[in-house]
Amino acid sequence: MPTQRRLANAIRALAMDAVEAANSGHPGMPMGMADAATALFTKHLKFDAADPHWPDRDRFVLSAGHGSMLIYALLHLTGYARPTMEDIKNFRQLGSPCAGHPENFELEGIETTTGPLGQGLAAAVGMAIAERHLNAVYGDELVDHRTFVIAGDGCLMEGINHEAIGLAGHLRLSKLVVMWDDNKITIDGSTDLSRKEDVLARYEAMGWHTIECDGLDSGKVSKAIDEAVADTRPSLIRCKTIIGYGAPNKQGTAATHGAALGADEVAAARKELGWDLPPFEIPDDVAKSWREAGARGSKARAEWQRRLDASGKADEFKHRIAGKLDHGWLAPYLDTLIANPPKVATRKASEMALEAINAAIPATIGGSADLTGSNNTKTKGLEPLTTDNYGGRYIYYGIREFGMAAAMNGMALHGGVLPYGGTFLVFSDYSRAAIRLGALQGAKVVHVMTHDSIGLGEDGPTHQPIEHLQSLRAMPGLMVYRPADAVETAECWAAALANDGPSLLALSRQNLSPLRTRAESENLSAKGAYRLKSAEAPRKVILIATGSEVEIAMGVAANLEKQGIGADVVSMPCTEAFDAQPAGYREELLPDVSNREILRVSIEAGTTFGWERYTGLHGLRIGIDRFGASAPAVDLYEHFGLTAPKITERVLAHLKIRETA
Amino acid sequence: MPTQRRLANAIRALAMDAVEAANSGHPGMPMGMADAATALFTKHLKFDAADPHWPDRDRFVLSAGHGSMLIYALLHLTGYARPTMEDIKNFRQLGSPCAGHPENFELEGIETTTGPLGQGLAAAVGMAIAERHLNAVYGDELVDHRTFVIAGDGCLMEGINHEAIGLAGHLRLSKLVVMWDDNKITIDGSTDLSRKEDVLARYEAMGWHTIECDGLDSGKVSKAIDEAVADTRPSLIRCKTIIGYGAPNKQGTAATHGAALGADEVAAARKELGWDLPPFEIPDDVAKSWREAGARGSKARAEWQRRLDASGKADEFKHRIAGKLDHGWLAPYLDTLIANPPKVATRKASEMALEAINAAIPATIGGSADLTGSNNTKTKGLEPLTTDNYGGRYIYYGIREFGMAAAMNGMALHGGVLPYGGTFLVFSDYSRAAIRLGALQGAKVVHVMTHDSIGLGEDGPTHQPIEHLQSLRAMPGLMVYRPADAVETAECWAAALANDGPSLLALSRQNLSPLRTRAESENLSAKGAYRLKSAEAPRKVILIATGSEVEIAMGVAANLEKQGIGADVVSMPCTEAFDAQPAGYREELLPDVSNREILRVSIEAGTTFGWERYTGLHGLRIGIDRFGASAPAVDLYEHFGLTAPKITERVLAHLKIRETA
Repeated sequence: MPTQRRLANAIRALAMDAVEAANSGHPGMPMGMADAATALFTKHLKFDAADPHWPDRDRFVLSAGHGSMLIYALLHLTGYARPTMEDIKNFRQLGSPCAGHPENFELEGIETTTGPLGQGLAAAVGMAIAERHLNAVYGDELVDHRTFVIAGDGCLMEGINHEAIGLAGHLRLSKLVVMWDDNKITIDGSTDLSRKEDVLARYEAMGWHTIECDGLDSGKVSKAIDEAVADTRPSLIRCKTIIGYGAPNKQGTAATHGAALGADEVAAARKELGWDLPPFEIPDDVAKSWREAGARGSKARAEWQRRLDASGKADEFKHRIAGKLDHGWLAPYLDTLIANPPKVATRKASEMALEAINAAIPATIGGSADLTGSNNTKTKGLEPLTTDNYGGRYIYYGIREFGMAAAMNGMALHGGVLPYGGTFLVFSDYSRAAIRLGALQGAKVVHVMTHDSIGLGEDGPTHQPIEHLQSLRAMPGLMVYRPADAVETAECWAAALANDGPSLLALSRQNLSPLRTRAESENLSAKGAYRLKSAEAPRKVILIATGSEVEIAMGVAANLEKQGIGADVVSMPCTEAFDAQPAGYREELLPDVSNREILRVSIEAGTTFGWERYTGLHGLRIGIDRFGASAPAVDLYEHFGLTAPKITERVLAHLKIRETA
Repeated sequence: MPTQRRLANAIRALAMDAVEAANSGHPGMPMGMADAATALFTKHLKFDAADPHWPDRDRFVLSAGHGSMLIYALLHLTGYARPTMEDIKNFRQLGSPCAGHPENFELEGIETTTGPLGQGLAAAVGMAIAERHLNAVYGDELVDHRTFVIAGDGCLMEGINHEAIGLAGHLRLSKLVVMWDDNKITIDGSTDLSRKEDVLARYEAMGWHTIECDGLDSGKVSKAIDEAVADTRPSLIRCKTIIGYGAPNKQGTAATHGAALGADEVAAARKELGWDLPPFEIPDDVAKSWREAGARGSKARAEWQRRLDASGKADEFKHRIAGKLDHGWLAPYLDTLIANPPKVATRKASEMALEAINAAIPATIGGSADLTGSNNTKTKGLEPLTTDNYGGRYIYYGIREFGMAAAMNGMALHGGVLPYGGTFLVFSDYSRAAIRLGALQGAKVVHVMTHDSIGLGEDGPTHQPIEHLQSLRAMPGLMVYRPADAVETAECWAAALANDGPSLLALSRQNLSPLRTRAESENLSAKGAYRLKSAEAPRKVILIATGSEVEIAMGVAANLEKQGIGADVVSMPCTEAFDAQPAGYREELLPDVSNREILRVSIEAGTTFGWERYTGLHGLRIGIDRFGASAPAVDLYEHFGLTAPKITERVLAHLKIRETA
């Protein structure tokens, strides 16, 4: 039997070799944490490399994602189908699943994409929440697993750390264990350059249990994990390590953090570690021990499978984990809206839709970053998710937008739950990095962003989104919806629930008139844009609007028609969905003719940046290209020229200019 | 002499009355913290309402900006020229300087715009850094003041709190005092809904001094402030208060947080407080006492002025505080570049420019969020700013992008220093909310954002910006520069230093060939775009590119010319500056003709979203509309089709389609 140290050295060797081959990467962290990771993966982590998707597996998150070779080595050694040694040899090369940072869409066994610091730990908090919730729903027999995290100093210094551990401490997520790679080194050098902090005391202040151990002694780490697991609080294990441990001349310095060690130092490290094999070779005894570790969980998995089969809930549980949703709520709910069209803010319309959704889909877990009453995210009957009731389906996230969004990613990636969470649209700036990481991973979450324009009113420019809609639409993988009334809001919710990845709903604070009063045979909002009103007089103008401005566009169209100028109104709740429509549909809606023939006008209470895509250069773009102001919403719409009379004037002036040009 | 409580009740009355008149706003916080604020403003804060710009005044930051009526009341009562009582009566109405949240561009005496939670405190950390730095430069005689903050639970729960107080604790900013409004209420209800935390223990773990007091007892608050001021660490004073204190039926509940109390409750509160005056009336004795408090500092100010006049540094000091900069560094530096054009990454070119800038402009304070060697932000001779040497001009901000950006805002708003700070462009998502708040305020800072595209290479999609450039350009008030070579980098730095507000430099990791090899009589980059190369054959194509893609565009142009197709190359380092050019200049560069006559092609290694503004709908947009990948940069440029041969092919195909169409 090889020693734990020898097993760990296999990780060290692979990390050195892969970084050397790529001449790029981060050897320091895998080498420093190899012993600790070996303890975790050979003695504690409940997993079965043969079934990476086993729902009751422990989750492992490498929050310090730059140390990606640590997890690639672990997955390879424990017997996952990928990465192969060939994959590892191609570390950081095009086409290799061994990317610079671990990506869950590249390899099974990677629970979440990490790299942007702090977010792995915050997602792990979400995973631990999902576990407790599903445990409350399905019992210990089916759901009873832990979440382990390896985090570095970066993860602990980032602001999101405060939000994430605050949430974990508040919800007393006792099955969450964070192993802190305390190596006293960051990229700039010693942590003393930028930090004087008693990290353990801070975690304790947040309701965490803390332990210290020698992170280079696998046995001591193992004891610490035992202690962590026994505690009823989330645990932080301070693993005292040396970055780049094993590289005799460079270890303990920032030089090992993010660059290849160089041939000489790698040779010296091999000697130091007693590892005399060529690059990318693993001795048989070591390989065998590691594979046995990777199969440790197979018995537990088989037992779990038997319990599931005997539970009488197997089908339901599988559907739940697979994320299958019942979309049957939509049609009857639309019927009630058509029967009795309400004049409500779309944030209220969202709440109304959520009443139907939450009743039909038990997987939803709502929440808000301390704006519950404003975001309208809590429907009747949703109990709070608390330490006394993890089965609750509503989370008071506190004033933690970033932590909320990252936790939602983790919940979605855990599976079995469908999280949505609210804040003001302007505060998407706080959570943006998590919105993006969710988009990259296709994490199925819904960001409910209310108060989506100057329509927010008196709170003023700090709270009024201007560039946010367009800057979020520019993000790959995210679908942004801005519905115009209650019907569109329901349709947008339905579209969001049907998406594979994240969606964002931008919702009004102010009441909006019902515009969609006829039943339709399809979800028009899901097409991204559709003709809400056709020109009556010969068509000279197409008004393209979103959300609260569609009602205004209808007023403009009416004014124009009165003057014999035919105007279509195109409602465009989702530009990304529209862009994905067949060319014929897009051309039919927005014909490719000069603006002299048909003037295209965009109307949105935000930046005009980017609207040239739909108006062309010679179209007219109505919006706000500066910061907002503090006043009642109605005064602001007047002030910024976003009223039907003022826009009509501008359209007429533009038509005149083009005529005389 | 009115009691302190009676002085505080004047604040309470104004807060109630203004919110009542607006029927919107936040009475709870001003009413809860009125006594604490009274203690601070009547006994401790060094200021002179007659000279709001006195450089050695104490800074006061209302981080809990929603309680804006607190500061409006204080400014009015202490005798600032504005707000007048009329202004206060028009609280939250269009045109009133009493906006929903305090805006420093509306009223003197407001040191920074607040509202987005946590950022006021983080900016205050920056102010306290600026104070210590200028103290080191000019001595106690000229610079010796404190920074006081009132913060609420939101400010303490936000992630940025961790970054800000970590920085403050690390730099031992003893002249920073934070008064925490501990009222146990957030919007959603009791803080118990979302927080179980020993806040004081957390602050102590971060190197802070902490004190508790009854926040409703002005005398006790005063004693606590004395104690805070005496300590050598930054101090947190826990002011135990009751939200909406004085409103007998609603106090202590979330109902007082963000809505008018209602006529009945206001009447009841008047009775409770013994305040029997009509709305917006202040008794003479109270008014007099407050005005005396506002003039307390006049003697100190006069003495300071005498010290300044006698110091022999008066002119230099005034220039420094006024932000006057010597731009003389540019011309000789450009000469050296023209004489010997370097092939360097623009991040390196930025470092080279900074060598000249930092030597010429003593006000600069550089830094990086733990990427010093990658951002190239530390020039030779810049000493670290540390507790042992506040005179240093380089800050190791740690892994705290948001905290860095917010602190930079505060430093700039303090005056006397010009901060710049580095991180990777992709991490602008972490600091975006502070970038925006700086843009709103016109805070003169420079965000140095390197690794600005897939050119970052192996670190992969989590680290590769795609939508970032466009989403930052969409932000009002921010100038985004993406230079193409060393000359443009110098020009962009010069433009950034000439701006009134924030600038962001997007810089390459990879080396770029020199493109600007002739001396010019003006700063071409400051115009936003200019013709780098004119068509030789009859012009059929205009290639518009930025940064690292300009070199590629030059290759495409050469290929096209070989085939007899004339092609201009327009380098566009700053779209916002270009948009602000006279129409004639813009038309000359990008003539308004159909793409059939002259095909316009944009080339940028990021999203194509928004480039229709320059190419028109029928132009060609070359970019990346999905997430990146992990591989060496050169492979990624090939993979994503961003090479001269591949783009040439696409341009030729497009020209052919248009010909045959």
